[in-house]
Amino acid sequence: MAIASFLTRLPSALTASVRPSLGRLLLHTTMASSPKIYVAVVGVGLVGSEFINQLLTIRSSPFHLVSLTSTTRTLFNHAQPLSASWKSDLASSADRPDLAKLTQQLSALVSPTQKVALIDNTSSEDVAALYPTWLKAGISVVTPNKKAFSGDIALYEEIVAASASGGGKFLNEATVGAGLPVVGTLKDLVATGDKIVKIEGVFSGTMSYIFNEFSTGQPDGPAFSSVVKIARDKGYTEPHPADDLNGADVARKLTILSRIASSSSSSLPRLQSYAAVDTASLIPPALENISTGDEFLARLPEHDAHFASLRAEAAAAGAVLRFVGVVDAVNGRVRAALERYPTTHPFSTSLGGSDNIIMFHTERYGARPLIVQGAGAGAAVTAMGVLGDLLRLV
Amino acid sequence: MAIASFLTRLPSALTASVRPSLGRLLLHTTMASSPKIYVAVVGVGLVGSEFINQLLTIRSSPFHLVSLTSTTRTLFNHAQPLSASWKSDLASSADRPDLAKLTQQLSALVSPTQKVALIDNTSSEDVAALYPTWLKAGISVVTPNKKAFSGDIALYEEIVAASASGGGKFLNEATVGAGLPVVGTLKDLVATGDKIVKIEGVFSGTMSYIFNEFSTGQPDGPAFSSVVKIARDKGYTEPHPADDLNGADVARKLTILSRIASSSSSSLPRLQSYAAVDTASLIPPALENISTGDEFLARLPEHDAHFASLRAEAAAAGAVLRFVGVVDAVNGRVRAALERYPTTHPFSTSLGGSDNIIMFHTERYGARPLIVQGAGAGAAVTAMGVLGDLLRLV
Repeated sequence: MAIASFLTRLPSALTASVRPSLGRLLLHTTMASSPKIYVAVVGVGLVGSEFINQLLTIRSSPFHLVSLTSTTRTLFNHAQPLSASWKSDLASSADRPDLAKLTQQLSALVSPTQKVALIDNTSSEDVAALYPTWLKAGISVVTPNKKAFSGDIALYEEIVAASASGGGKFLNEATVGAGLPVVGTLKDLVATGDKIVKIEGVFSGTMSYIFNEFSTGQPDGPAFSSVVKIARDKGYTEPHPADDLNGADVARKLTILSRIASSSSSSLPRLQSYAAVDTASLIPPALENISTGDEFLARLPEHDAHFASLRAEAAAAGAVLRFVGVVDAVNGRVRAALERYPTTHPFSTSLGGSDNIIMFHTERYGARPLIVQGAGAGAAVTAMGVLGDLLRLV
Repeated sequence: MAIASFLTRLPSALTASVRPSLGRLLLHTTMASSPKIYVAVVGVGLVGSEFINQLLTIRSSPFHLVSLTSTTRTLFNHAQPLSASWKSDLASSADRPDLAKLTQQLSALVSPTQKVALIDNTSSEDVAALYPTWLKAGISVVTPNKKAFSGDIALYEEIVAASASGGGKFLNEATVGAGLPVVGTLKDLVATGDKIVKIEGVFSGTMSYIFNEFSTGQPDGPAFSSVVKIARDKGYTEPHPADDLNGADVARKLTILSRIASSSSSSLPRLQSYAAVDTASLIPPALENISTGDEFLARLPEHDAHFASLRAEAAAAGAVLRFVGVVDAVNGRVRAALERYPTTHPFSTSLGGSDNIIMFHTERYGARPLIVQGAGAGAAVTAMGVLGDLLRLV
């Protein structure tokens, strides 16, 4: 800006001759110095809080945290970016959440030398529905929220189009596998021209824990209901375990991956939404409509014999049970189901705890797949996935 | 450029008032449209050729392939980018390689609206020594060549400084694990504030193949020399197998990772070069100075009993032998050596073929490590790693 105002004060005859080179210098200067990136965070729960704390520890940071929005309050302070006292600052704000107003405030900050990123740390459909508006305004969207990318295809295509036509960028690494390099790896494979054959994995940390405990290759073991109860007590399941056992979380992740992979595969179906994934729910039909988690757990033992017999059959075949997701680009099928894997398979030998494991079978990784494994849930690693994406905007 | 020349032809009084907003528009226009990226490739062997072929298949590509350099010829054509006929175009060039001239030609292309990337697909120290020059000229460097990042620390620090002070960027994902997400994953962990505890892995595809075949947990098996001979026949080793068995390739990869990790760990040593890595060579002392691969292989059977006894001892302890690399940030040690792992460990159960496997033990991935596994060598996957990096410049 100093150079620009100097330029306007030069005698006109002189500016006519030096302008091109000075303009070039100005452009150079503004490009060379790290441009500011204004950051607004929507959702300050477990992941949101952890994200903010990680963001504030970055040294020589180009990021200016200018806005926070919780379910009850909002804060916008462009002049003085937020710091370690963000929690009390937000608590003392009198402003109610207003995403329309936030959109206006952030749009006004977008300029060639200033980027703006909105971090959606909610799991809200309503927030997801605003991504096209933000992207068109030049605001980038970084999020672990799966809703927009696994919901109605119309919203997804609007997001892709808004970003492609020179708007903001959208980055969603943390929607699958939290901080694990899954979405970025798939994007790289596809962008560099590899052909996806099959993506196969254990995508739910909850399902991973339950079946790592329940099925170890032995014909017997703990009751299914007792494993689910322990998982819930440890906080690994949703308050209502049926929200994990229905497989919807896995179907959403498969939808996100399948939509990325489909640009390199003509045989993959155009998924209207995650509901179109062939998902074999683990909820016993008799327990489909139980409204509370407690009642669900109280009645789950009625079905222990069923799960025990599946385990015994698998063991007799030298296999374990795992709830997996598969994007099968050869046969054009996307499915989530409880399947058997030999006890020598990495889904049995290598998996433990609540790990995710994802295998990419591709043309280039032909004989043996590319594998990514590790914790796929938790606030620290999810926030890291989001922050890693944000750093890619620099 | 059209807007800029229009600006210079406006009456001076007018330009004084409208210049700031037009300048802004110009900046906007050039940022919004995908900027051209000029690409020069040095090294057109197996990886280089595959890279070029992958590059040319990208749709709506922002890349213009303007220069090729082999060991005997060079080609520079800024006006008409190279296409599918690049091989014959290069073969028919009369120009001898001249990196100083190439530097001048590429520097002249750098501008705020035009990026230039030099792809070093050689394994040359001489080419690596030019990275600081290129970076200072604003030319980005993308490469699978380990030399600059694992050699003398002075060159490495010059590269980091040249890039940090607003020059070109350097991207080296393919230096470790080829197309596997290893370097990028580590950079993300460090940049987001995770603390590296230990990085442990099988980093050499050659060593992986040799020990996956040689040591399976059984007390006996094929002779060590016969496995090395087969590996060489398959093209998995260098022409002189001692160039793999000395562990230098692993030491170089560990140096690259350790230097990245050391920014989050004060206990890691400042490695003067890869030679400072504690490397336990597998070359029997009696065979240290044998000049040809054939003679080396002819005499290796004299040492089969030694390796067989290591295998038997490991098997008696329920373990396999693996040649691993370890960056131990707790004890501040970086080492490459043949070590024992239980037959239940992923280095035994999950590994096969010539896979690499890398485990990141960190503060956030505390209980269980983040694991990346898959083919870590080969032209297709190495070229993919390079192209993935180049795409990050867009």
